Amino acid sequence: MQPLVSIIMGSTSDLPVMEKAAKMLDEMEIPFEMLALSAHRTPAEVEAFAHGAKARGVRVIIAAAGMAAHLCGVIASMTSIPVIGVPINASLDGMDALLAIVQMPPGIPVATVGINAAQNAALLAVQMMATGDEALYARLEAYKESLKEKVVKANRDLAELKYNFKTN
Amino acid sequence: MQPLVSIIMGSTSDLPVMEKAAKMLDEMEIPFEMLALSAHRTPAEVEAFAHGAKARGVRVIIAAAGMAAHLCGVIASMTSIPVIGVPINASLDGMDALLAIVQMPPGIPVATVGINAAQNAALLAVQMMATGDEALYARLEAYKESLKEKVVKANRDLAELKYNFKTN
Amino acid sequence: MQPLVSIIMGSTSDLPVMEKAAKMLDEMEIPFEMLALSAHRTPAEVEAFAHGAKARGVRVIIAAAGMAAHLCGVIASMTSIPVIGVPINASLDGMDALLAIVQMPPGIPVATVGINAAQNAALLAVQMMATGDEALYARLEAYKESLKEKVVKANRDLAELKYNFKTN
Amino acid sequence: MQPLVSIIMGSTSDLPVMEKAAKMLDEMEIPFEMLALSAHRTPAEVEAFAHGAKARGVRVIIAAAGMAAHLCGVIASMTSIPVIGVPINASLDGMDALLAIVQMPPGIPVATVGINAAQNAALLAVQMMATGDEALYARLEAYKESLKEKVVKANRDLAELKYNFKTN
Amino acid sequence: MQPLVSIIMGSTSDLPVMEKAAKMLDEMEIPFEMLALSAHRTPAEVEAFAHGAKARGVRVIIAAAGMAAHLCGVIASMTSIPVIGVPINASLDGMDALLAIVQMPPGIPVATVGINAAQNAALLAVQMMATGDEALYARLEAYKESLKEKVVKANRDLAELKYNFKTN
Amino acid sequence: MQPLVSIIMGSTSDLPVMEKAAKMLDEMEIPFEMLALSAHRTPAEVEAFAHGAKARGVRVIIAAAGMAAHLCGVIASMTSIPVIGVPINASLDGMDALLAIVQMPPGIPVATVGINAAQNAALLAVQMMATGDEALYARLEAYKESLKEKVVKANRDLAELKYNFKTN
Amino acid sequence: MQPLVSIIMGSTSDLPVMEKAAKMLDEMEIPFEMLALSAHRTPAEVEAFAHGAKARGVRVIIAAAGMAAHLCGVIASMTSIPVIGVPINASLDGMDALLAIVQMPPGIPVATVGINAAQNAALLAVQMMATGDEALYARLEAYKESLKEKVVKANRDLAELKYNFKTN
Amino acid sequence: MQPLVSIIMGSTSDLPVMEKAAKMLDEMEIPFEMLALSAHRTPAEVEAFAHGAKARGVRVIIAAAGMAAHLCGVIASMTSIPVIGVPINASLDGMDALLAIVQMPPGIPVATVGINAAQNAALLAVQMMATGDEALYARLEAYKESLKEKVVKANRDLAELKYNFKTN
Repeated sequence: MQPLVSIIMGSTSDLPVMEKAAKMLDEMEIPFEMLALSAHRTPAEVEAFAHGAKARGVRVIIAAAGMAAHLCGVIASMTSIPVIGVPINASLDGMDALLAIVQMPPGIPVATVGINAAQNAALLAVQMMATGDEALYARLEAYKESLKEKVVKANRDLAELKYNFKTN
Repeated sequence: MQPLVSIIMGSTSDLPVMEKAAKMLDEMEIPFEMLALSAHRTPAEVEAFAHGAKARGVRVIIAAAGMAAHLCGVIASMTSIPVIGVPINASLDGMDALLAIVQMPPGIPVATVGINAAQNAALLAVQMMATGDEALYARLEAYKESLKEKVVKANRDLAELKYNFKTN
Repeated sequence: MQPLVSIIMGSTSDLPVMEKAAKMLDEMEIPFEMLALSAHRTPAEVEAFAHGAKARGVRVIIAAAGMAAHLCGVIASMTSIPVIGVPINASLDGMDALLAIVQMPPGIPVATVGINAAQNAALLAVQMMATGDEALYARLEAYKESLKEKVVKANRDLAELKYNFKTN
Repeated sequence: MQPLVSIIMGSTSDLPVMEKAAKMLDEMEIPFEMLALSAHRTPAEVEAFAHGAKARGVRVIIAAAGMAAHLCGVIASMTSIPVIGVPINASLDGMDALLAIVQMPPGIPVATVGINAAQNAALLAVQMMATGDEALYARLEAYKESLKEKVVKANRDLAELKYNFKTN
Repeated sequence: MQPLVSIIMGSTSDLPVMEKAAKMLDEMEIPFEMLALSAHRTPAEVEAFAHGAKARGVRVIIAAAGMAAHLCGVIASMTSIPVIGVPINASLDGMDALLAIVQMPPGIPVATVGINAAQNAALLAVQMMATGDEALYARLEAYKESLKEKVVKANRDLAELKYNFKTN
Repeated sequence: MQPLVSIIMGSTSDLPVMEKAAKMLDEMEIPFEMLALSAHRTPAEVEAFAHGAKARGVRVIIAAAGMAAHLCGVIASMTSIPVIGVPINASLDGMDALLAIVQMPPGIPVATVGINAAQNAALLAVQMMATGDEALYARLEAYKESLKEKVVKANRDLAELKYNFKTN
Repeated sequence: MQPLVSIIMGSTSDLPVMEKAAKMLDEMEIPFEMLALSAHRTPAEVEAFAHGAKARGVRVIIAAAGMAAHLCGVIASMTSIPVIGVPINASLDGMDALLAIVQMPPGIPVATVGINAAQNAALLAVQMMATGDEALYARLEAYKESLKEKVVKANRDLAELKYNFKTN
Repeated sequence: MQPLVSIIMGSTSDLPVMEKAAKMLDEMEIPFEMLALSAHRTPAEVEAFAHGAKARGVRVIIAAAGMAAHLCGVIASMTSIPVIGVPINASLDGMDALLAIVQMPPGIPVATVGINAAQNAALLAVQMMATGDEALYARLEAYKESLKEKVVKANRDLAELKYNFKTN
């Protein structure tokens, strides 16, 4: 299937984080592609990707980068497809990547998610596409509902735990 | 016209920052609304807004918040409409607001832009809607093109400046 | 026994930290409950909890949260029961959680303790209730007295240590 | 009237921040005292204050301190009355004071509020006393209700503002 | 004269900082050019500049950027001419720009100087060119010698100041 | 009189901060000198100073420095006279200078005081010399006693202030 | 022998860091004592220690503390003996302790050394005492000389290492 | 062969980081030396090195330092040979070293690379020398080209990975 979302990363060392984005998109049944591109090592390939993505049908780009994280901003400067930036915790607890992704100048936004938050990047991509797709929106609402289950289970676990205390 | 984007802020003290979002949306001819809502002072109203927005036709929500900036995350927890968070520089150079907006738990993303970056929030909202709207995408591309003009003008200014130096 | 203190956490992954609060309350013979609630995943349940706590006899709420830690502030916005916030060290050494809990806007305080400081949260809860309860106050004074013992023991250990040095 | 809350500060330079605590307590009709005490310049007076406060009927202590903010912790070590710490923004944006107040060792909590957040400190003090006083609790609920008015007014202001835009 | 050094900035708002680089190069009699280029607004022009600089005789590039400062890194990825990065204090005291410039991935260094340190960037550019130019090296040594004069003058000023004190 | 303390600074721009050290030493009747020396601009003069200070009777050195503050550490590496470092708030709120002064490697301590805390540096110098001088120690104790007066005065001011409140 | 230096710590958990101070003092043949004291758990004992130290012949106090590190400042407020503060890396990489020790208010300095830098604290204590003791000063100079040996050895190691490279 | 680049470090504990610089220089066929020098332990040797380097034919100096990283700045103050500073991650995630290296005063630049980025330091040294050496420039361009291979390989790996997903 033609990919609707491109997941971009600088190297396969980002894969343990970024595969959470892939899994979430797959769960949402959104076709996607995963590509390695580097703002610094393959700038020409980044440019070719960014300029060609729209024509290929890509609707949202998720880009991961660590340290002086330029990949997200560089792609965002070359296309009007929304770019979601995932700061990778490669140094300084990921604070350098977070600032290098989120503090974009006027005119070129990057939709930044939390440090290593690839799963949230995928959900955000789906939310963006669901602005014009009611069926997709319904799938998101169902997913949101499912988040409660983990909390319900946690309550059951806590309820069992407590019986050793004096005051119970 | 029915608003497609909601710009939410905690108080009118955020208006000098957030009106840049309003102006950008207006330039892009996107109907919008501006509302004051506070995660902490009017939690019931926030909930009513978040649960009703989809039915009212709102497609993207831009929320501004400073300090322990909960407004964006709280709205994001109550709707599947994408929420764009604008950290406001109310204390600690805006670092507290940035972290309180961007570091969301799995399942509930907020699309975070830079500190005080309301104009970028508006552009990002348009980019999200343009994932399903070619005409809007074309408007964004035209806007992106126009950003070059400021740089061209800066080059003219610099060219004139330089004539006092010895080596020229 | 009817709980006087509610210990709230987002998931059982916070339990290793938060059980120190449970143990301290138990040592002080304060009945308590432990519940899993998430500001982002179960906002309706959080609201139901916050609005119902007073009627159920809850006098202090201890809430733990990591990252963009909204749970404490959201509960504080919905009740006048004092809320004690425990920042959990889930990312950035807990600094994001600390700022997201402590930097509350005017009108909605959260009594913040140190990062992962669940034991202190429990003690603070008892201190709050002891503002109107002399017997409880006496129990706190006895506890405070007991803290000296650890230091006395440390002095004994140090005294033994030192005999290898030239100058002794 | 006998003071129920002591507001402590190191010098009158903290008064512009701390008088917000005084005003809020006065609005809540809680008798209070304001004292200058310094952990470093008048340690004996601090000790006399901390040891005598309970007998004088003080139920909550609010202490402000900037820089290496020891006042709150030192008082907390000498009494079981709850101590609310207000970090003052005297240097480093108040971050040094925040950390020096909130990061207390096990056994000696300080209920920390935001940087310069003296009004919230006062509200928190009232919440603590209201754990055993239903009338006071009702006053807090009324105050919480009143916070909405500012947001309602902001909405009126925003509604008027918006009429200049193309899309409206 | 053909420029040996290119001073690049995103907009003329960086000029008050960057003209210190121009003045220092002029003092050292190094021909230079000043250009406005934006990694985000004119990526194609940045690429054209970076790919053409070597052929035009440019030997060192000085690039200034604030916030998520990608300009330096993007140019560095497209040429083997050394790039000196000047972080501009546009937000967060310049810390975001510093990290976005200095934390480059392996293979693509940027020679980073201090926040707003445009004069040092120019000196560093001259030092780089002086690695193969003894006359230029001598000019740098003379400049270094001249730095002492300011300290000598400060000593004279201090010597006069001190005569009011008791112990002198 | 032969100086016992040397106050060193990089330029007269540090004088507004450092003259507080001069005044405190003068108040304590300690003869001192003030010199401008730069670790970077006059390294030979710094070395001559550091190697000659002991023979000239200097007993403590107070050195101020901002940014990448090397002056204190460089002097400390060249003499066994204790060096007190004063971080100057020249950039990044003084945090760069604080870290560059305090984080010395094993073997070469610098006694660091707070950012801009020149008065404390002078007091610390006197405390060091008083380790072998009972008369000087007595002068310090008298000074410490005098610090209480400011707090006593603040209490008088606060006592007058409070009479406007309802509850008094 | 009567101790000249007191090494104070809050608990034996600081011992792995603080024993480096003990060893260095022992190497310098300075009699010392090691005591456990807690600003928060044993405030009365801290006061007794601080008020009695001078009469017992203590000339320098080294105090270690982590987190909201009040021990150093509290002792410094009660004696004119110089206090050397060692920030312990117990949380936030030791940054909270560093700020809580170094940022003392005017009048009460603490001579702060680097995070965990107990060995430097001991050397600084000896330097302080050597301001009035030529024999001790000579011992410090000898120690300083010995520091070079480690560097000399490192050079030998590096010289051997290099022979595998092409260019040698 | 006579070394063109000097790699300087404080101790062999920096070797695991700095040998990446050695390997890169060797790959580029640049003769180099590795020396241990300490700004604090062997200041005289540092001075001798810095003053003699030019005459020995050294064209670029790479200096590594951790904590209060003075080595780079001290050498830069004594020679006009360009100095590249490598902050070593010895404490505080390397942030103290980064600031102590990059924030140099006007007149004495240090070309700073990322934390632990010794390989980039070596490349930068080669870029500096290539400003006057076309053959060396060509070698750098070839190296830059080779960086793409790793990305190409990553793409192959990612292409294989993806076949388990539903949408492919």
